[in-house]
Amino acid sequence: MVPHLVTALTGPINELEQRVLDSMPAIERWFRLEWMEHTPPFYTSVDLRNAGFKLAPVDTNLFPRGWNHLTREMLPLAVQAAQAAIEKICPEARNLLVIPENHSRNTFYLENVAQLVRIFQMAGLNVRVGSIDPAIKSPKKIELPGGETVCLEPVARGKRRLGLKNFDPCTILLNNNLAAGTPGILEDLHEQYLLPPLHAGASLRRKSSHFHSYEELSKRFGKLLGIDPWLINPIYAKAEGEAALATQIDAVLAKVRRKYKEYGINEKPFVIVKPDDGANTGIMTVRDARDTEELLARMKGSNAELLVQEGVLTQERVHDGFAEPVVYMMDRYVVGGFYRVHAERGSDESLASPGASFVPLAFSESAHLPQPGAKPGASAPNRFYMYGVIGRLAMVAASYEMEATDPEAEVYE
Amino acid sequence: MVPHLVTALTGPINELEQRVLDSMPAIERWFRLEWMEHTPPFYTSVDLRNAGFKLAPVDTNLFPRGWNHLTREMLPLAVQAAQAAIEKICPEARNLLVIPENHSRNTFYLENVAQLVRIFQMAGLNVRVGSIDPAIKSPKKIELPGGETVCLEPVARGKRRLGLKNFDPCTILLNNNLAAGTPGILEDLHEQYLLPPLHAGASLRRKSSHFHSYEELSKRFGKLLGIDPWLINPIYAKAEGEAALATQIDAVLAKVRRKYKEYGINEKPFVIVKPDDGANTGIMTVRDARDTEELLARMKGSNAELLVQEGVLTQERVHDGFAEPVVYMMDRYVVGGFYRVHAERGSDESLASPGASFVPLAFSESAHLPQPGAKPGASAPNRFYMYGVIGRLAMVAASYEMEATDPEAEVYE
Repeated sequence: MVPHLVTALTGPINELEQRVLDSMPAIERWFRLEWMEHTPPFYTSVDLRNAGFKLAPVDTNLFPRGWNHLTREMLPLAVQAAQAAIEKICPEARNLLVIPENHSRNTFYLENVAQLVRIFQMAGLNVRVGSIDPAIKSPKKIELPGGETVCLEPVARGKRRLGLKNFDPCTILLNNNLAAGTPGILEDLHEQYLLPPLHAGASLRRKSSHFHSYEELSKRFGKLLGIDPWLINPIYAKAEGEAALATQIDAVLAKVRRKYKEYGINEKPFVIVKPDDGANTGIMTVRDARDTEELLARMKGSNAELLVQEGVLTQERVHDGFAEPVVYMMDRYVVGGFYRVHAERGSDESLASPGASFVPLAFSESAHLPQPGAKPGASAPNRFYMYGVIGRLAMVAASYEMEATDPEAEVYE
Repeated sequence: MVPHLVTALTGPINELEQRVLDSMPAIERWFRLEWMEHTPPFYTSVDLRNAGFKLAPVDTNLFPRGWNHLTREMLPLAVQAAQAAIEKICPEARNLLVIPENHSRNTFYLENVAQLVRIFQMAGLNVRVGSIDPAIKSPKKIELPGGETVCLEPVARGKRRLGLKNFDPCTILLNNNLAAGTPGILEDLHEQYLLPPLHAGASLRRKSSHFHSYEELSKRFGKLLGIDPWLINPIYAKAEGEAALATQIDAVLAKVRRKYKEYGINEKPFVIVKPDDGANTGIMTVRDARDTEELLARMKGSNAELLVQEGVLTQERVHDGFAEPVVYMMDRYVVGGFYRVHAERGSDESLASPGASFVPLAFSESAHLPQPGAKPGASAPNRFYMYGVIGRLAMVAASYEMEATDPEAEVYE
């Protein structure tokens, strides 16, 4: 189930969306069966792009921030899902330690930490925030603009466990994406649950691994829906360094061009080039040969691993800016979402950049809840449902990706 | 976690409630550990009575109706919990059959059925309603005052399975409390999940078994909270027929009188006498010897099994009538609640009688969510939390009761 939230999308329901809405029971069953075999990430957020003819995930975050942009009405769903997650992992849990990013002066970010603390407290845990920032040497209370406070405490590492002074957690929840690599202080914690696992860290994850898993899943899911998987899957290629880049850009653009022709889509294909590791900086839109040249000049001599990904236009606009939906999940449940809006970016550019703002999605106020089989007009369809489906599909892909990249996985040959 | 709903209760927080609020992490952990060993009923509603000094369950319904009195805002919680329940019981499920009560002309009741259908459809199942009323010989569409329709279809029984024409469910959800005994058509369905189990039926369940389980649990729970279990447990005795009744009434009244004295409570003790089986008719308040005589006269020669239960005053008033909260649970989760209000009943009478009305509890609109440890005044406490705790405690008791009365239980000696 996906909560019924108000989307910016209000036009007629196109074929893809209708197919998704009609297949709801089959889709929900498909997810239930997946979760019998695979473990959902503890929490996930997924950035989507809806071009109308096509809907695809473009980023799957395993250390989601931005929980503070979920409306208050959504919190009970997040709390209930958090209870389910905790119950599965460690029912005996009393204490949960949240490890945030180190930039402790960013009160926007700390509002997110405060919201996470609130969610897990309401789920019935003792929650404290332990910083791995060496600059935090004693408990530091930070007042937030909303009137709350967050207390960052220095973590204390024992031989086998991590905690705070007088606080021994059974579960450690990372909200720090470990972009700078895995800190030693988090290694060899075999007595505690450390979530997400260290190999989900931004320095170790590869976007290409994720989209490889997603592509495979989109084929199976496309078969379930009876649709071309391209309608939910962004074409991608991996390029190592400058040398391979032009070739891969051309290859992806050629594939997209062919698809646009097949579907009679009158838009200019473009690709997004981004680092293949977890970093979300230096994301660039490539529309033509000149963009490619510029990028190659910038990349000169570089060996960086890059992901060349089909660009998906966004059709949606909120407050006069282009917008993309972000879907939040806790355990296997969709618990909310919001729009990321960027007033200064175009419909073919990444919106995840400085200057973006966030517009919460409200619960639908429609008098009737969506009900399959109801007379047309009697119930408003849940336009957010489709986003919840593709968000969850990307979450399943992340689960496959984590299995495939687990350094401690047992290999049966 | 318990959703933060607005209660009628707005006075100062008394000692019992404060103890419950302060013990939240310990309480939630206690429930998690219980559910490791025991299976929650599929769905449950619990009637509570809050006397201020004491809060106790007085009825635990395993075939809850009244789902239509839950507000629209609560539905996502119910749907999410329904998903969790289905996933546990039968992840492969496609089809769910709901079996309602037979009184198909009661549109109040059918609004409840429509709400249940909606919840499970939104959880991603194909849901249809199968009547076991022999009067239903072909599909019957009934228009409801709210504009919806419910279609009652005649069930079709095969040798080993129950379904509808062209509809083979994997799970059958009873919303019919089987007050007239177990119909043969529901027996020997070993290939399908039939929930709740037949031994939860009103003709087989005994209130005294339930309150026996509850009493045992309240002792353990009282220890956890450091309180006298009487503060959450209604004293009871079982009486078989007229002969034992006067003695048991006196015995219960004497115990309550002792407790009132111990706590300096300046109220007149009373008992509620009700059938020990699942029926909720003929419930009577006994305040004094005259009431007892009247009851004995009525009972003359009867062998009926009765439950004599300490009466718990209700302190709460809504719209100038006395009110009692009803807590709704799906699987192990509290998903909502409402007040049952009866304008013509006193604070020491059962409100579950004709003429009662239902006032949904709204989600709290308080600007701040309750947060343990927050500055006083910075967060409004969740007054509904305590109701969710005692409601769930009664649900755990029902789980123990179902285990103890399961005719197919394996006995290890």
